[in-house]
Amino acid sequence: MNFAQQHLTSLLRRMSLDAILFWSLENIRYLCGFSGSDGALIYAGEERIFLSDSRYEEQARAEVRGAVFRKYIKKIEGIVHGLRSLGVKRLGFEASALSWESYQKLRERLPRVSLVPLAAQIALLRARKEPEEVEKIRRAIAIAAESFRDTLPRLKPGVREKTVGDFWEIRMKHRGGESSSFPIIVASGARAALPHGKPSAKAIEKKEMVVIDFGARHEGYHSDETKTLVLGKPDHRQRKIYDLVRKAQEKAIRAVRPGESVRRIDSAAREVITRAGYGNFFGHGTGHGIGLAVHEAPTISPRGAGVVKEGMVFSIEPGIYLPGWGGVRLEDLVLVTGRGCEVLTYLSKELKDNII
Amino acid sequence: MNFAQQHLTSLLRRMSLDAILFWSLENIRYLCGFSGSDGALIYAGEERIFLSDSRYEEQARAEVRGAVFRKYIKKIEGIVHGLRSLGVKRLGFEASALSWESYQKLRERLPRVSLVPLAAQIALLRARKEPEEVEKIRRAIAIAAESFRDTLPRLKPGVREKTVGDFWEIRMKHRGGESSSFPIIVASGARAALPHGKPSAKAIEKKEMVVIDFGARHEGYHSDETKTLVLGKPDHRQRKIYDLVRKAQEKAIRAVRPGESVRRIDSAAREVITRAGYGNFFGHGTGHGIGLAVHEAPTISPRGAGVVKEGMVFSIEPGIYLPGWGGVRLEDLVLVTGRGCEVLTYLSKELKDNII
Repeated sequence: MNFAQQHLTSLLRRMSLDAILFWSLENIRYLCGFSGSDGALIYAGEERIFLSDSRYEEQARAEVRGAVFRKYIKKIEGIVHGLRSLGVKRLGFEASALSWESYQKLRERLPRVSLVPLAAQIALLRARKEPEEVEKIRRAIAIAAESFRDTLPRLKPGVREKTVGDFWEIRMKHRGGESSSFPIIVASGARAALPHGKPSAKAIEKKEMVVIDFGARHEGYHSDETKTLVLGKPDHRQRKIYDLVRKAQEKAIRAVRPGESVRRIDSAAREVITRAGYGNFFGHGTGHGIGLAVHEAPTISPRGAGVVKEGMVFSIEPGIYLPGWGGVRLEDLVLVTGRGCEVLTYLSKELKDNII
Repeated sequence: MNFAQQHLTSLLRRMSLDAILFWSLENIRYLCGFSGSDGALIYAGEERIFLSDSRYEEQARAEVRGAVFRKYIKKIEGIVHGLRSLGVKRLGFEASALSWESYQKLRERLPRVSLVPLAAQIALLRARKEPEEVEKIRRAIAIAAESFRDTLPRLKPGVREKTVGDFWEIRMKHRGGESSSFPIIVASGARAALPHGKPSAKAIEKKEMVVIDFGARHEGYHSDETKTLVLGKPDHRQRKIYDLVRKAQEKAIRAVRPGESVRRIDSAAREVITRAGYGNFFGHGTGHGIGLAVHEAPTISPRGAGVVKEGMVFSIEPGIYLPGWGGVRLEDLVLVTGRGCEVLTYLSKELKDNII
C-alpha cells in the first residue's frame, strides 16, 4: 500500500465512512489510473468502482487498475446506483471538487445517506510522491530544460516574446512532452513586472531582463521552473534585485527538511526580501506542490498550514516585481528527502550563467 | 448590449437579484475580458467588480473592460468585501461552477445575504455567438484544417499514431494556434472503436480506418472537427458504416434551424443509425456547443432540453463504434442562421475525399 492508500484506509475507519466519492480527475487518475476527462470513483477500501460514459469504456478497461468499471448514461444516476450496490450509508466527498449543483443532486437522490465533506482530510492525498512519480517529474523537467537549451540561441534582441514561446512549446513536443504544463511565460523589460505575463508581440531588447516560466507534462506529471535572463551586462539595479531574489531562494531551499512548517519555509525567503525593503513587491507565495496538477498541496505561503514531509515535491519561487521597471523570479522544484531536500531542476539560477 | 448582457439584465430584475457572482473562467472572460487562470466577477448590472490576486494585477488592468479591478489576498475575503461595498443582499451564483466548499465559506461569511443558485437560468449565457466570436472560431477552424493538410502527407502505413498527433499539434502552433483545443485523437484500426482514443505507439496499417478528432484554440475560442480516413480502397463493411454515419450527419445538419429542439436534431442523426441496427453502437450525443469552452451549451442529445437559436455554434458528430473492428465518426461545426445553418468546418466529409 502506498501513502495514499494507507491514508484513505485510516480515514475511512477514523471517520466511519463507508466510501469516499472522488470527482477530481487528478485524484481519480492517481487512485485508479484513468486518464480521460470525465468520470467518478467510489472508493470503499478494497471495493472500488470507477464510473464513466460510453466514450471512455475501452480506455477505462485498458487503464483502470484496482477498481471495477461501470458505464453510466447520466453521471449522477450511475453514482447513485454504484453507491446503492455497495450499501453505502455514510459517504465522504471532495468538498473543493464537487460543485454545489452536483452535491444537491446527490442530496436529493440519496436522502438516507450522510454526506460528509472532506477538505483538509484529503488535501495532502497526492502530496508525498512515490519513486515512480518522482521519475515522471524528473523526465518532465528534462524535457522542458533541454527544450530551453534548444530555444536559447533564438533569445536575442529583436525577437518577439511570442515567437520565443511558440518555438519553445514546439520543442517540448519534439522532445516527447505531452504538452506544455501551462502557457509558457516570456515577459521582458517592464512586462516582467507581470508575474504571469503571457508572451506578447513585444520584442526583447538589449539590456532587458526576461522572466521565463516553463514546464512540460510527461505521463500526466508536470514540471515548473523559472529563470530570469539578462540581455547583456546587468546594471547595478538588475544585479541587486537578482541577487536578492537568488539569496531568498537559496535561504528557502536550505530551510526545507522533513517536519519544517510551510510558513517557515516561506518566511525564510520572504524575510530576505522584506528586510531589503521589497516585501510589498513579492505578492505571491514562495511555492506550491506539483504532480498530476501544476498547483497542488502543499502551499508554501504565509497562509499555508502544516509541515512538509519526505517525498513531497514543490516549487521554491520567490520574486520581486517593480511596476514600470520589471521583475525577477527564480523557481526550482525540490524533493523533500530524509534530511533536507534535493533540487530536481538542474538549470543554473546563478546570475553569471543567465547573462546572454 | 449583446445577447448576454440583455439576458443578465433581465435575469437580475426577474429574480430580484442585486448581483451575480461568476466563478467560471470562461464566463469571466466572456463578460469582462480577463484571460488569466484565477479570479471572480461580481456582476451587478452596470456595476461590476473583477477580483484577482497580485499575480494578475497588471494583466487585469490591461484586459478587463466594463468592470473595476480589485486585488485580493484571500479570494473569499475579497469577494465578501466587494459584495459588501455594493450592498448586495440577494446574490445569484453559478451552481455548477461554485464548489460545495466555496459555497459554505460564502454562506458563513455572509449570514444575511440570500444565496440563489443559478443553473438553467445561465446555462445558455454564451451559447449565442456574436459575429466577432464566430470569426475567432472560423480562424481556429482554419488553423486546425490547414495543419491537417500539412500532416496528411505523413499519414501513411507504418507511421505511429503518436507521431502523427505530435507533428499535427506542432503544425497548429506554427500556424498561430494558441494550442490544441484538446489532445488530438488519432485512433486507427480496432482502436477507432474508442471514441476518445489517445494517439498510441500503434502504427497505422494499410486498409485500416483512422478516426482523427482535432481542433485549435485562437484567442480563447476553440474549434473541433472529426474526419475518418481509409488507407486504401474501403471494403464493403467500411463503406457501409461510413455511408451510414455520413447520412446521419447530413440528416442532422439539415434539421438545424432556429426553433428546432435539440432532441429532434439528435434524433435526426440517431434514427438513421438505429434503423440500420447500429443504435447501440452510437453511445454519445450528436453534438455540443463550442466557444470559450470546448464543450458548452447547447447539448444536442436525447437528454438535452430546449431549442436552438440563431447565432449558436455547435458540433454535429454522429459515430458508430464496433468493438474489435473499429469506428467511424464525422464531425462538423454549424452556425445557426436565420433560416437554417452554415457549416463552418470546410474539410470534406465525403468518403471519396477521405481515401488516402
